[in-house]
Amino acid sequence: YDNLIQQGDNPDLTKERKTASFNLWKMQCFVHEGEDVVKKRKEILDFVQSKREFDDPVPAEFLSREEVVDRGARKAVAMTNNAEAIDTSDFFGEGMYYQSLVMGRDLHSMSLHYIMFMPTIQGQSDDDQMDEWMGPTAVRAILGTFAQTELGHGSNLTKLEATATYDPKTEEFVLHTPTLTATKWWPGGLGKSCNVAVVMAQLYTNGQCKVAGPHPFYVPLRDPDTHMPFKGVTLGDIGPKFGINGSDNGFLIFDQYRIPRRNMFMRFSKVLPDGTYVLPPHSKLGFGTMVFVRSIMIKDQATQLGAAAVIGIRYSAVRRQGEINEGAGEVQVIDYRTQQFRLLPQLARAFAFLFAAYEIKTLYLDVTEQIGSGNMDLLAELHAVSSGLKSVVSWETAQGIEQLRLACGGHGYSRASAFPDIYTYAVGGCTYEGENIVMLLQVASQDSGKARIRSWKQCTDEDIIHDFEAVARRMIFSSYDRLKSFETTMRKKEAWNKCSIDLCKTARIHVKLYLVKVFLRRVSACEDAACKKVMHTLATLYAFDLISGAAGYFMKGGFLSELQSELVQSDLYEMLEVLRPESVALADSWDMSDLELRSVLGRRDGNVYPALLEWAKKSQLNKTEVLPTFEKYLGPMMKEGRAHL
Amino acid sequence: YDNLIQQGDNPDLTKERKTASFNLWKMQCFVHEGEDVVKKRKEILDFVQSKREFDDPVPAEFLSREEVVDRGARKAVAMTNNAEAIDTSDFFGEGMYYQSLVMGRDLHSMSLHYIMFMPTIQGQSDDDQMDEWMGPTAVRAILGTFAQTELGHGSNLTKLEATATYDPKTEEFVLHTPTLTATKWWPGGLGKSCNVAVVMAQLYTNGQCKVAGPHPFYVPLRDPDTHMPFKGVTLGDIGPKFGINGSDNGFLIFDQYRIPRRNMFMRFSKVLPDGTYVLPPHSKLGFGTMVFVRSIMIKDQATQLGAAAVIGIRYSAVRRQGEINEGAGEVQVIDYRTQQFRLLPQLARAFAFLFAAYEIKTLYLDVTEQIGSGNMDLLAELHAVSSGLKSVVSWETAQGIEQLRLACGGHGYSRASAFPDIYTYAVGGCTYEGENIVMLLQVASQDSGKARIRSWKQCTDEDIIHDFEAVARRMIFSSYDRLKSFETTMRKKEAWNKCSIDLCKTARIHVKLYLVKVFLRRVSACEDAACKKVMHTLATLYAFDLISGAAGYFMKGGFLSELQSELVQSDLYEMLEVLRPESVALADSWDMSDLELRSVLGRRDGNVYPALLEWAKKSQLNKTEVLPTFEKYLGPMMKEGRAHL
Repeated sequence: YDNLIQQGDNPDLTKERKTASFNLWKMQCFVHEGEDVVKKRKEILDFVQSKREFDDPVPAEFLSREEVVDRGARKAVAMTNNAEAIDTSDFFGEGMYYQSLVMGRDLHSMSLHYIMFMPTIQGQSDDDQMDEWMGPTAVRAILGTFAQTELGHGSNLTKLEATATYDPKTEEFVLHTPTLTATKWWPGGLGKSCNVAVVMAQLYTNGQCKVAGPHPFYVPLRDPDTHMPFKGVTLGDIGPKFGINGSDNGFLIFDQYRIPRRNMFMRFSKVLPDGTYVLPPHSKLGFGTMVFVRSIMIKDQATQLGAAAVIGIRYSAVRRQGEINEGAGEVQVIDYRTQQFRLLPQLARAFAFLFAAYEIKTLYLDVTEQIGSGNMDLLAELHAVSSGLKSVVSWETAQGIEQLRLACGGHGYSRASAFPDIYTYAVGGCTYEGENIVMLLQVASQDSGKARIRSWKQCTDEDIIHDFEAVARRMIFSSYDRLKSFETTMRKKEAWNKCSIDLCKTARIHVKLYLVKVFLRRVSACEDAACKKVMHTLATLYAFDLISGAAGYFMKGGFLSELQSELVQSDLYEMLEVLRPESVALADSWDMSDLELRSVLGRRDGNVYPALLEWAKKSQLNKTEVLPTFEKYLGPMMKEGRAHL
Repeated sequence: YDNLIQQGDNPDLTKERKTASFNLWKMQCFVHEGEDVVKKRKEILDFVQSKREFDDPVPAEFLSREEVVDRGARKAVAMTNNAEAIDTSDFFGEGMYYQSLVMGRDLHSMSLHYIMFMPTIQGQSDDDQMDEWMGPTAVRAILGTFAQTELGHGSNLTKLEATATYDPKTEEFVLHTPTLTATKWWPGGLGKSCNVAVVMAQLYTNGQCKVAGPHPFYVPLRDPDTHMPFKGVTLGDIGPKFGINGSDNGFLIFDQYRIPRRNMFMRFSKVLPDGTYVLPPHSKLGFGTMVFVRSIMIKDQATQLGAAAVIGIRYSAVRRQGEINEGAGEVQVIDYRTQQFRLLPQLARAFAFLFAAYEIKTLYLDVTEQIGSGNMDLLAELHAVSSGLKSVVSWETAQGIEQLRLACGGHGYSRASAFPDIYTYAVGGCTYEGENIVMLLQVASQDSGKARIRSWKQCTDEDIIHDFEAVARRMIFSSYDRLKSFETTMRKKEAWNKCSIDLCKTARIHVKLYLVKVFLRRVSACEDAACKKVMHTLATLYAFDLISGAAGYFMKGGFLSELQSELVQSDLYEMLEVLRPESVALADSWDMSDLELRSVLGRRDGNVYPALLEWAKKSQLNKTEVLPTFEKYLGPMMKEGRAHL
């Protein structure tokens, strides 16, 4: 285990790696929660690099949509064929890492099979159903997806339009999409790949919709042998998207399509053979799958922002531009204060998000255990924290990636940089599972009316946390007062709507308070003194940057004085200076191999320019010296032009 | 000329169009600077829609890179074949509009021929050169591009590495790229399409580099008949990018490639046959082309943000989600205050940028006239204003488009929405012509040390402007003081670097002051009372939103009181309420046809859902019901799985 320096590296990067004040291996172990994890990461990396089945003859960025989908299916099968390389019960850790190494930044036709379909089977089936469905799912005898959102409805589940009407004569459910807008829309793998889906539909029995809000059904869609859709089922791909084009997100139309009664998931609510509806013991139990996905997504977003920061920092150490001292030669762009300000707060942000993801994972496991024993106490908290985090994290990740892309100048716009792929993959997370603002309102809704925010375990850095808490608390009070005063003259939901901008701002500050707390607490538990010192500066940079960005709120009522506010600014610049020589090593501490980064600009060895030229030579357009466009259009045009002279 | 309402439209959109308080035609005329312009726009639109040569058999989003490039070349030739439809001397107005209708949001192999190559010939040639080169350029007997940036250098022109060494024995220049990083990189159309380029290179004569900084040369690259590169020239495409993939941006390597002495552009500096270098009369004269491109880009960015706002607003009027009053049915999402806050400030921003673009165009024309008569007074101002604007406008346009995309939920992620294409096209502007921060520093550099900012013609809304000016001025003073205090202990450039974050913030506030001023001034000149009233509210919303975002600066030293600051917030919400019923008509006032928008979500008729399904059916993946991936990978996998059960 070394400091990543090798012979033949770009000397600027080597120089940077030598100026770090901490041991890289120890920092990697801190970042990834332990030596075992980092060792296992290296094992998985070696395994993936050793398998020829995982190779890409042509990098994905040079492929057409059809070819990307083909590559995705080929590699997804190869990946799951070789699952013995990892602990498949640990998707948050080993699973995600393994998948990112094999697949890169794209989803594929089997993503939802594991992330949504299988967990639904595990969580929503009764014992007999589990016996019947879990086997085929686990051995990949079927390929499943999760069909909830519709053309006309996303996050407002109670208004979904697809129906499942029980017919006691045949003991079947009739699935139907009664309107165009009821068409199921978006599910990954639904268009062309999967042959079965969990379908969420409004349940009608004995002529009534018993409970508003969808119920899950197990629905075979395609013939296992021919792969043709069954009669009554219309399927298709929804077309190209911003990114994630390796996945055939699909649409699904039902025309009076019948499935047996027992294809309703019956762990909680049931329909008896005569059509009697039996209520579930708890109405929010169906929420588990979504929360699971959300906790994974926060880590995923942190990783994407981290990758962008690694690329930005390494490239900024390699790129030279302009002179700071006349005649002294061009400097590394990372020497510019403005550049440091673009890079380091984003790196800090990425760590803050990663650490928050760890917290959510732990909370999720606690909740799962509690629910297993019938205790629902932590479920609401998990929901509030994870939804608020997801919302802030996804928006700030998107912004951060773009800041870092711009920090790399023109080359950041090339797909060689990986920024376009990182961005379109990461912002998929902003929308594909519910809308941001809707989620922020859920957090505000949790908080409004409470006099004090949730209290956490003992904190270091009490001053910072005290301030954040005070500001957050004051914002709650004032939003709440405003809400109550509106409520005297209008209906509750109308009043809520009028206050919603304030409520969102309040929710956001709360999420940031949470992020700062988690970051500082993690760092205080770091056992290596040198690592702890640098990380503490980075955590403080993060907090000060947040305060600086929310100065308006902090200065209200003179809570933060002008002198303090100016101190925050000048301290920020001092911290940038202190962190400057640690930057590349901090980037290295993410332990991202070239295979994981997939970026010419972010290469470990820093030999960016020759690699850019090599990459460009693979361009689809460079297969021939003269393109057909010359003979077809440009040649005749110029010939005619010459004739005119 | 009507209010865009037609039979069969989505009734929600029709309802919105009827609630506007102003006449749509009059507003369109205000927005586009006059009745003549809007009439001409309609003529151009009719012309483009009538020409079958401009049709796309398959929409561009379903094509592979090779197919997009083919489409680009085909349509670019067709577009320039039919140039009689427009006044080609007015690229800022008619040219850009015509191009956007024909080509959509992409550049093509002939973009730089008109935007950079031809203006350089016009601006840098002496009389004989003009006679020789202008003819072939105008009749498209040659296809040119502009090769400046290199693999290793972008905005720092003085350090470009490509060389042009004069050989008096043969009276030729020898072009050479002495290092890998000297490889020319990025020029549009350079890779595969163009056969000649303006090449910027360091000039050596009599063994010396006379003037640091590149000189322009006219360089034939490919054989006109075979299109093969000449010996000593290596060309290629630089590979796929975030967007703008219809353009074959290229690389260019010279190996001792010889061109005649007279291929140096000689309007300003010259090399005589014996190798004597003759200085140009003014060192910054070469800057004209870049400023021209910049002024076009600001309008282009404004148009892209405007398109995103039009799509976001129309779709938010059509989309229904959730109930505000229980049992009253789902509301249009535009009824949510948070949604209004996402939409309307962006719409205001787009107008502010558009109006600023008009100002820059006027200033540009004034400067061009002045330079023609040897007067350089306004050149520095044009450079400062346009570079600062470009920087702020491009970053805020990018952010705004993404806000609007997210406001459309999941469907915003589909390429059917047009957001992905709008975004990747618009952010191309963030980098392809110099880096943002570098430009902001140029503005700060202009301003620092001046006691008062530039004064403008008589202003309405003096209070707002007064406040912005006071804050901006104070920021200059404080940045300047900080800079001077650093300069007592270190070199000037080092001090500049240490202060650069503050200097950038100062520059940004100045640009915003400029934008507010221009917006308010334009509105005050509006002749129609109803239009003026609504636009004035929108301009005030813009200014208040900026103040709210910069509250920290405004509240310093108690300049803005807490009471005032709260008033700014609550006024903001009140303005949203006032503007709510005008929103769709304000969007319509951009006069963007469906052909220009190219967005299923933003359709004039609002019939979004059936159109989404129709669009999806065209997906590449829907050509066959069963993809080859089933037979190759997924089928065998599932068969094997079944055998295991």
